[in-house]
Amino acid sequence: MKRVYLDNNATTMMAPEAYEAMLPFFCEKYGNPNSLHQFGIESAPALRKAMDQLYEGLGANDLDDVIVTSCATESNNWILKGIYFDKILNGEKDHIITTAVEHPAIGHTCSFLERLGVKVTRLDVNNEGLIDPDELRDFITDKTALVSVMWANNETGAIFPIKQLADIAHERGVLFHTDAVQAVGKIKINLSEIDVDFLSFSAHKFHGPKGIGGLYIKKGQMLTSLLHGGEHMGGRRSGTLNTPYIVAMGEALELANKFLDMENSHVRRLRDMLEDEILTISDVSVVGKRQNRVPNTILASIKGVEGEAMLWDLNKAGIAASTGSACASESLESNPIMEAIGADKDLAHTALRLSLSRFNTQEEIEYAANEIKKAVKRLRAISSSFAYAPKWHKSGL
Amino acid sequence: MKRVYLDNNATTMMAPEAYEAMLPFFCEKYGNPNSLHQFGIESAPALRKAMDQLYEGLGANDLDDVIVTSCATESNNWILKGIYFDKILNGEKDHIITTAVEHPAIGHTCSFLERLGVKVTRLDVNNEGLIDPDELRDFITDKTALVSVMWANNETGAIFPIKQLADIAHERGVLFHTDAVQAVGKIKINLSEIDVDFLSFSAHKFHGPKGIGGLYIKKGQMLTSLLHGGEHMGGRRSGTLNTPYIVAMGEALELANKFLDMENSHVRRLRDMLEDEILTISDVSVVGKRQNRVPNTILASIKGVEGEAMLWDLNKAGIAASTGSACASESLESNPIMEAIGADKDLAHTALRLSLSRFNTQEEIEYAANEIKKAVKRLRAISSSFAYAPKWHKSGL
Ligand SMILES: Cc1ncc(COP(=O)(O)O)c(C=O)c1O
Ligand SMILES: Cc1ncc(COP(=O)(O)O)c(C=O)c1O
Repeated sequence: MKRVYLDNNATTMMAPEAYEAMLPFFCEKYGNPNSLHQFGIESAPALRKAMDQLYEGLGANDLDDVIVTSCATESNNWILKGIYFDKILNGEKDHIITTAVEHPAIGHTCSFLERLGVKVTRLDVNNEGLIDPDELRDFITDKTALVSVMWANNETGAIFPIKQLADIAHERGVLFHTDAVQAVGKIKINLSEIDVDFLSFSAHKFHGPKGIGGLYIKKGQMLTSLLHGGEHMGGRRSGTLNTPYIVAMGEALELANKFLDMENSHVRRLRDMLEDEILTISDVSVVGKRQNRVPNTILASIKGVEGEAMLWDLNKAGIAASTGSACASESLESNPIMEAIGADKDLAHTALRLSLSRFNTQEEIEYAANEIKKAVKRLRAISSSFAYAPKWHKSGL
Repeated sequence: MKRVYLDNNATTMMAPEAYEAMLPFFCEKYGNPNSLHQFGIESAPALRKAMDQLYEGLGANDLDDVIVTSCATESNNWILKGIYFDKILNGEKDHIITTAVEHPAIGHTCSFLERLGVKVTRLDVNNEGLIDPDELRDFITDKTALVSVMWANNETGAIFPIKQLADIAHERGVLFHTDAVQAVGKIKINLSEIDVDFLSFSAHKFHGPKGIGGLYIKKGQMLTSLLHGGEHMGGRRSGTLNTPYIVAMGEALELANKFLDMENSHVRRLRDMLEDEILTISDVSVVGKRQNRVPNTILASIKGVEGEAMLWDLNKAGIAASTGSACASESLESNPIMEAIGADKDLAHTALRLSLSRFNTQEEIEYAANEIKKAVKRLRAISSSFAYAPKWHKSGL
């Protein structure tokens, strides 16, 4: 059966080169890299190379810290809770500013902090999914501890003007964090040119493995650890090093950056092609201007076609897509980003997210465009309020 | 060159079967298991099997939660900080009891909490590395939120009487956590018989991969999440699931338990053999009674022989050992556990930890015993206060 994977914003296939690079570290070079013997020492060169690849891939300075974590969820919890412990618990500050369209790893962590008394401002977005920088300026107070704005949105692909937003925060002496999970590997990230204090990333969004990511910490910034213990990672993040995944993540980032031009030509061309085809269907809209989105993402709403029903039809044709954030996929919820950008509830239930990668081919995209059209036809014929909700997958994991 | 790995308490080689089991989930079945399409769904059976293996392997009840984390360091931080948020920050409780010989993932996290005003009692150990249960009883107050005692010590291998200690805590209505990292896979852990509320484990100590572990949470126990976000793991631990490592961890635990009899015969026999040989050297002592230790561990002190110098000689012979916790290996520190059990500073610098696994052979052990004897002879001949400290490994990782 055909298999066309268009859900790369949820997770990606590992790049074969990254996969190969990590294999020796499971059953051969398996020593703890912190150990004083050959079994530990022999993994040092590969680890050092991987760390260099991460620094290089982000444009980080040698004096900055790139700290490996277990995922962007950990990185995001770390920055928010670290700020809580460093600046808020002691009464120095009381306020965090973020957006209404962050991933739950930011959004839900902010809600947790709100329950502890922290004030959280969630900036609204316009119908393209973007915030108003002037509004950010207006909300900053003397008690604001942190501004956290994602670099690119996971649903719409919208790119936020991070340089401008970071500058606004810094003018007022406020720290700036960006969740760059959906930007790294899709657009050029060069931290020697864009002055952020903290940046989160996750390897499995750029063809590295799931369960590893990082937090960039600008030179000189302190941040209480989230994981205390054996003082790995220069004392900032404890836990025995996951050598194979670190090696794979470094390799995956270098590759992703190498393919950035391809991302911007091949992937963008296929995305635009698919988008053009979808837009030939009546009553379909796509969120956000193309030039303002990462090159691989389409968030479409297809009037009268329930997102889950569409996924079901596409899945039968071997095509993987999403109605929005993978996290919420279990429940028949409307797409929260669609609601945030002002779509009405009905329309928010018709969201279809298609996210490509460099591994997609033109033939796949033509096939997918065709299957989407067939599905729209079939589903609209049945009912415009069709709400078939198959419960064919395991929840609770 | 000969390669003899006797540092299994630091980390282990992955079991080949666990390695094989995870491979399909990197480049083939790579979908996010929470996704509503074939790429996601196809990993569900393997994930379910792995979760079953974890429940089975710990003797957990279906209504308990076994939550996958990125390592035991995360699990330990989670339980301590969760208790802080749930019971201490609001003033309900103010006190945690632990031991003086916990791993830094407990010890340093407690120090962090102390800086926030939490009272921490660290129970002293005797010269066998064990605490006095009556002392635990004496220290519990109405304000005690948690007792956390490791199941087995990483340096000495000493087994703590967890059932008895948990019962003492429960008599007084206090929650009980155990860091079972060095017990799981080495001795039988059956939580249907031993009533702990929380238990931490880490896969790479039982021939699973590094960078994955878990926290067992007894039925009905609440615990604020450490990682908020997309509500994976039944809402308790967010972050995209690391499918390959979960599969490998399940497999590794099942295997380790299958080999428990072997651990208790083959591994114990080799360990005892090695210990007997070492004890033929003059002025050597081993911490703790054999029957009260996990079957694979020896912590010896060899008078007049600096631990690091010994490691250096052994490493030249292809043998991997440790002077103590891998985390501290970078610095020329004395073994903290040796100090805790009352050894003087000089002796604490002579610690040599040898930790075996089921992959060791009798030939390896005979070779190691011989090389240790040669090293002792050579090093004692040079100087009894010999303190050669090679700086031949990379720090900061
Ligand atoms: C924008 C954004 N932030 C954070 C995350 C969390 O990443 P992970 O699940 O790897 O922790 C995701 C992916 O789900 C994301 O899209
Ligand atoms: C007793 C004990 N607890 C916790 C840990 C931490 O495990 P990890 O490094 O996998 O987080 C270790 C291992 O280093 C340990 O021996």
